[in-house]
Amino acid sequence: MPESPVSTGVVPWSYAGGRLLLLDQRRLPHEEVLLECESAAQTAEAIRSLAVRGAPLIGVAAAFGLAAEARRVADRVPDDLDAALSLAAERLVGARPTAVNLPAAVARMRRVVEASVGLPAADRTAALEREAGAIAAEDSDACLRIGRLGADWLERRWGGRPAGSVTLLTHCNAGALATAGIGTALGIVRTLAADGPVTVLADETRPFLQGARLTAWELKRDGIPVTLLPDVAAAATIASGKVAAVVVGADRIAANGDVANKVGTYGLALACRAHGIPFVVAAPTTTLDRACPDGRSIPIEIRNGEEVLFLPTRGGGAIRLAPEGVPALYPAFDVTPAALVDAIVTEHGVSEPPHAAGLKALAT
Amino acid sequence: MPESPVSTGVVPWSYAGGRLLLLDQRRLPHEEVLLECESAAQTAEAIRSLAVRGAPLIGVAAAFGLAAEARRVADRVPDDLDAALSLAAERLVGARPTAVNLPAAVARMRRVVEASVGLPAADRTAALEREAGAIAAEDSDACLRIGRLGADWLERRWGGRPAGSVTLLTHCNAGALATAGIGTALGIVRTLAADGPVTVLADETRPFLQGARLTAWELKRDGIPVTLLPDVAAAATIASGKVAAVVVGADRIAANGDVANKVGTYGLALACRAHGIPFVVAAPTTTLDRACPDGRSIPIEIRNGEEVLFLPTRGGGAIRLAPEGVPALYPAFDVTPAALVDAIVTEHGVSEPPHAAGLKALAT
Repeated sequence: MPESPVSTGVVPWSYAGGRLLLLDQRRLPHEEVLLECESAAQTAEAIRSLAVRGAPLIGVAAAFGLAAEARRVADRVPDDLDAALSLAAERLVGARPTAVNLPAAVARMRRVVEASVGLPAADRTAALEREAGAIAAEDSDACLRIGRLGADWLERRWGGRPAGSVTLLTHCNAGALATAGIGTALGIVRTLAADGPVTVLADETRPFLQGARLTAWELKRDGIPVTLLPDVAAAATIASGKVAAVVVGADRIAANGDVANKVGTYGLALACRAHGIPFVVAAPTTTLDRACPDGRSIPIEIRNGEEVLFLPTRGGGAIRLAPEGVPALYPAFDVTPAALVDAIVTEHGVSEPPHAAGLKALAT
Repeated sequence: MPESPVSTGVVPWSYAGGRLLLLDQRRLPHEEVLLECESAAQTAEAIRSLAVRGAPLIGVAAAFGLAAEARRVADRVPDDLDAALSLAAERLVGARPTAVNLPAAVARMRRVVEASVGLPAADRTAALEREAGAIAAEDSDACLRIGRLGADWLERRWGGRPAGSVTLLTHCNAGALATAGIGTALGIVRTLAADGPVTVLADETRPFLQGARLTAWELKRDGIPVTLLPDVAAAATIASGKVAAVVVGADRIAANGDVANKVGTYGLALACRAHGIPFVVAAPTTTLDRACPDGRSIPIEIRNGEEVLFLPTRGGGAIRLAPEGVPALYPAFDVTPAALVDAIVTEHGVSEPPHAAGLKALAT
């Protein structure tokens, strides 16, 4: 694959000297505030509270959180390193249940911990920092490959690029703010935008408003035209014939191709199928979970209904949206059956239905 | 039909002596503020600004707005009555484009204006007030009949009432706050709740949050258990098997049974069909528009994108939800194809597919 010219000006994290800086995504789009994490506990809290989110990025954050923890402990009580890292790994994995990239990244870091037993603490810390860096670099590279493969697949599916601006609809944020690179779904968008004019319709994605706050922000930052859509308007907009494709990310993909992603994804897939519009899932292979045979075995995070009932304000307060005493239900993810997914785009290639076979071929 | 025991404590309007009082639905659920309308212009503005909404209720409000206008003009410049009412009728019809109940109610009032030419202004005003009262009384009665017919249809479809509490999902507000009675969709809910335990899942219905602010408020007020759902979670919740039926209202129903209703309705219909869940539309026959052959001829209101970008606050301010410079698209309604609608429940009976024939039979 030739070097890609596709890039982004949006970089939501950095790490140096035991200090992980995360762009606090709860404060976007109004404020760009960096959150400092010098321990695994702080990193786990940043993940749990959605200061950092996006399946690939929380894997990267967890890896650097472990590296920061290693440096913190190695400097003070090096004998406690293994116990501290074991506890830290558990805490990080427990921060959010649905995305598989989180336990996958932590498992990879654990293997470095185990392989380095007996080495000086400083060397072990350095090995963990290198591994976290490798996880991030691989994710960045995967995004570039996903972008190119997805753009090529769509152009083939369309029978050539449609005339004029291509309208793509996306949900939640599977962009630079969700990865260590140009994004997965938005990686495809950025690649198509590098080839010609693109317009993005961004679902606002209640209740956390990742589309309104994050996708709109990062696309505007990179100069890609974006229009916000209430989630409820997506099906009618797809029916209108204006949308050339729907591209979304994934939090976990089962062995049969069932896709867990931000709640609302399933409804988009139904609308695409009803109108013959390509429905494309973009995700690095770290999102594949061969231990899950199908969507029923993917744990779906049920978040606090308060996140639906209250809208946070800039000042740290919150606006109540519903009458007192009325509860809310907030499943944060849903499962789209494999049969509704026209393409699963990974860095190793594109799976088409039947995905059980397609994904197996990509993984080997 | 025996007298129904089903009722509601929620009454969003009253009229006496040329003064129409409307519960300002923009201020719910936090404040109960009555808006005074003593002219057609004030009433049209209340309709346009969504202080009063709901297809049947805006018909009732427009009728009383014309009655109030008649009294205002008759008291001062009785010779101008016909010209004033003609202008007022146009202004009211122009306030919102999608619901057909609005022009239908105004047309009915216009016929009274025309039939009373030559009578003293006070008598003409009284005739208009009687006609507006009749429109409201007929709507209230239609709600009771729709409630009973819809509940009976669902119980037949279910093969008897399911054991335990019956979970119904609804969108927007087709309740007491949208009609002059117990509501259309919520009329069915209230009737089922009078027969046994019911739980309502209310879509929050972005961007105006009719579900969070209005449906949750009026059901809580009447003691019917309600849980709020982000719109994006509806498809997954339907897929989970928890929902016994989806019941919604309508703003206009074409002759072939295509249904225009609050945007988001179409996505619910797709999810219901995918999972074999009854999808029921409840509407008085005033919502049928035989002049529209199908959904393509129903005008869909495109509201200002600012209503998506900003969330109003109690103090009269607004919170920006997206970055500056990003536009939003807000089609306020969508069209659900007739083939996806399992039942259209009117006060004259229930239409089942094919609705072209079913609706024709009900209208004659």
